Amino acid sequence: MSAEQTAIEVPEGYRPLDVETLAPYLGEHPALRERLGGDPAAWQVEEVGDGNLNLVFLVRGPAGGLCVKQALPYVRLVGESWPLPLDRAFFEHEALVEHGRHAPGLTPAVYRFDPVLMLTVMELLEPHIIMRRGMIQGIRYPRAAADMAEYMARTLFFTSDLGMPAAEKKARVAVFCANTALCNITEDLIFTEPYMVHDNNWWTSPQLDNAAAAVRADAPLKRAVSRLKCRFMGSAEALIHGDLHTGSIMVTQDDTRVIDPEFAFFGPMGFDTGAFVGNLLLNYFSQDGHATEADDRTAYKAWVLETVEEFWGAFAERYGALWAERGGDAYPAALFAGAEGEASLAQARDAAIADLFTDTLQFGAAKMIRRLLGIAHNIDFEWIEDPDRRAACERPALLLGRELLVNAASYRTIQAVTDAARDFQARAGA
Amino acid sequence: MSAEQTAIEVPEGYRPLDVETLAPYLGEHPALRERLGGDPAAWQVEEVGDGNLNLVFLVRGPAGGLCVKQALPYVRLVGESWPLPLDRAFFEHEALVEHGRHAPGLTPAVYRFDPVLMLTVMELLEPHIIMRRGMIQGIRYPRAAADMAEYMARTLFFTSDLGMPAAEKKARVAVFCANTALCNITEDLIFTEPYMVHDNNWWTSPQLDNAAAAVRADAPLKRAVSRLKCRFMGSAEALIHGDLHTGSIMVTQDDTRVIDPEFAFFGPMGFDTGAFVGNLLLNYFSQDGHATEADDRTAYKAWVLETVEEFWGAFAERYGALWAERGGDAYPAALFAGAEGEASLAQARDAAIADLFTDTLQFGAAKMIRRLLGIAHNIDFEWIEDPDRRAACERPALLLGRELLVNAASYRTIQAVTDAARDFQARAGA
Repeated sequence: MSAEQTAIEVPEGYRPLDVETLAPYLGEHPALRERLGGDPAAWQVEEVGDGNLNLVFLVRGPAGGLCVKQALPYVRLVGESWPLPLDRAFFEHEALVEHGRHAPGLTPAVYRFDPVLMLTVMELLEPHIIMRRGMIQGIRYPRAAADMAEYMARTLFFTSDLGMPAAEKKARVAVFCANTALCNITEDLIFTEPYMVHDNNWWTSPQLDNAAAAVRADAPLKRAVSRLKCRFMGSAEALIHGDLHTGSIMVTQDDTRVIDPEFAFFGPMGFDTGAFVGNLLLNYFSQDGHATEADDRTAYKAWVLETVEEFWGAFAERYGALWAERGGDAYPAALFAGAEGEASLAQARDAAIADLFTDTLQFGAAKMIRRLLGIAHNIDFEWIEDPDRRAACERPALLLGRELLVNAASYRTIQAVTDAARDFQARAGA
Repeated sequence: MSAEQTAIEVPEGYRPLDVETLAPYLGEHPALRERLGGDPAAWQVEEVGDGNLNLVFLVRGPAGGLCVKQALPYVRLVGESWPLPLDRAFFEHEALVEHGRHAPGLTPAVYRFDPVLMLTVMELLEPHIIMRRGMIQGIRYPRAAADMAEYMARTLFFTSDLGMPAAEKKARVAVFCANTALCNITEDLIFTEPYMVHDNNWWTSPQLDNAAAAVRADAPLKRAVSRLKCRFMGSAEALIHGDLHTGSIMVTQDDTRVIDPEFAFFGPMGFDTGAFVGNLLLNYFSQDGHATEADDRTAYKAWVLETVEEFWGAFAERYGALWAERGGDAYPAALFAGAEGEASLAQARDAAIADLFTDTLQFGAAKMIRRLLGIAHNIDFEWIEDPDRRAACERPALLLGRELLVNAASYRTIQAVTDAARDFQARAGA
């Protein structure tokens, strides 16, 4: 985040709600009241926001539950000294609705958006937990790879120039262009700060001091991440979630939901696919730090890498299939008619998906590096208490991030990537 | 253009002006009246619009002259059956002002924009002529290459994420997102129709029938042009002119002005650089058709290719120099400090400019092909009356377009491109 402090516009009537004032607010809206049932005074309200930016309330009544997310005019993690526009709640709601339409069943249902209080009332997801937390415990989610592949294939395809008419897409691009404050956070925190000396940065110190210094001195890496930043800023491929790590996914054994798209805008598709892959790889490298005598996590580590492979395979297949079925303004059907045309278009699809694979690795690698050296770390590693043990997990993750960011083009298959993950970890342990 | 007919919104009070009503209109505005001088009834007004879309008036009074361009709610070339939104005049004015600010002295001065009549009052450029017309006559313009390099280096750099703060750029992207009707024309007429059977298409027939059929059957070419279309639709690199052929440039021996940016939007930089290069190459191939016993055009053809080379060399140098001086949000200065950082950034710049060179060749090639097979042809060729002679000029131009679109990446220098132009023409003559 840049140092400039900008005054945040707050709509007249905006006030942050709390566990006392939320129930009366919800009680005023008959549809919400009906979902909860009974007397608002008896509803249970808890505030559980463990993210970095917002208030999150869970509300339970006799008939059911609701989740309420309200934006604060500053970054919650930091405080009022870091203001942040409330309109991110508007963009989050827009993206939730649009992604929900394209990928039904893979986002929470949305019941109300309040443009004054900047809050969204959603389905309470129970008994879901945050995927990252489950993975730290070593819980397998057999549907996660396929569901996330489906979510990304559909949301990215249907908001791209392949799946959406050009004029409609341009109109949506224009709306999301205003989400600049959150784009700016990504530009600074992911693509810039980890590669320079900056007050926001921290890492497991002194263990990773040399590794962090090596990143700051790595000219090819800094060129590669800056090229990627330029692409992030200027590539309006599709309406991306913009923050699609495993903390933005709620799971059970048989259900997967994507939450929190407040960073949504029209950007490069690989930023979403990469976020998921990069965060799975981070979890893989963290597993040795959670190993116990009873469970050395070897089998779980294998499952994590299988999930990476299954995700990419399913994504490429689903995305390609949507393209083959639907066509679109780019790659017009009229140019690819007949059996020969279909074969040619299949070749074009394969080439485009290969390019997206390279993007996935590069953006994913940038996400890995920022979680190890930048302002916001992952509990996958943070919850490893012993700093030596944590650093031993983090070091090969950082090296793989560097490798994938600089040499992405030499990885042609997802198996080559999971092989590299195994290899980097084995070499670090040796 | 798609076949759908959409009702065009016309502002209340909009009416097309004519040679009778224009002078009284201009006379109502003191600043304009002063520029022309004397009595409006004595002003000379002529309508000279020879483009495809608009009314263009030249007005002369005792004190000076003005040029007035007014949008019509349909495509002038085709008539009222092809409606076209008037707001293109708004986008043209926005781009004229913005490009004029970044590249002073290389666009006409703008005196008034009327959002009801959708007209712009500009400097009358005298004794300038359209560069394309001068080149058909074999006139050299010693400043054109350097001026166009300066114009593109500055307008593209200062409206990109290198030269403009991210939030400001996003706000401008949003404005130009509404120029979809004109983007749609490009998408259809340049990237789609020439590669399929379409009523809009025509070519020198029967001479080029086989060549046109070969294009429609060329699978690698259709994949390449569709990939390019996808980039055109989704790549918001900079505020591009969008129609930067030699018909959008007015020249004298010592002055160069870029006009008519109504197709402006945030798109790929290579679409502008390619338009200029592609249209210079088309002119090169047309020269044999204008040769006479007195002038075989050999020397002029050499000058045209020198101009191509000089343009790209100067553009790459100026664009790189602006980047080196100014930095910007992408490729942040903090990551490239010190002598080593500067050397690394120079390497990043060279790599980015090499990518832009490839884009230039591909977009330029697409512009060449559409002018030979699509709806809108160039007078460079149209004015060659004998169809056999014309086809002999057009055929190698079409083949070079195909070559550059499919194999752009194998051309690493602009000299390799001009060599190929000479070679393709020589082989066609052999």
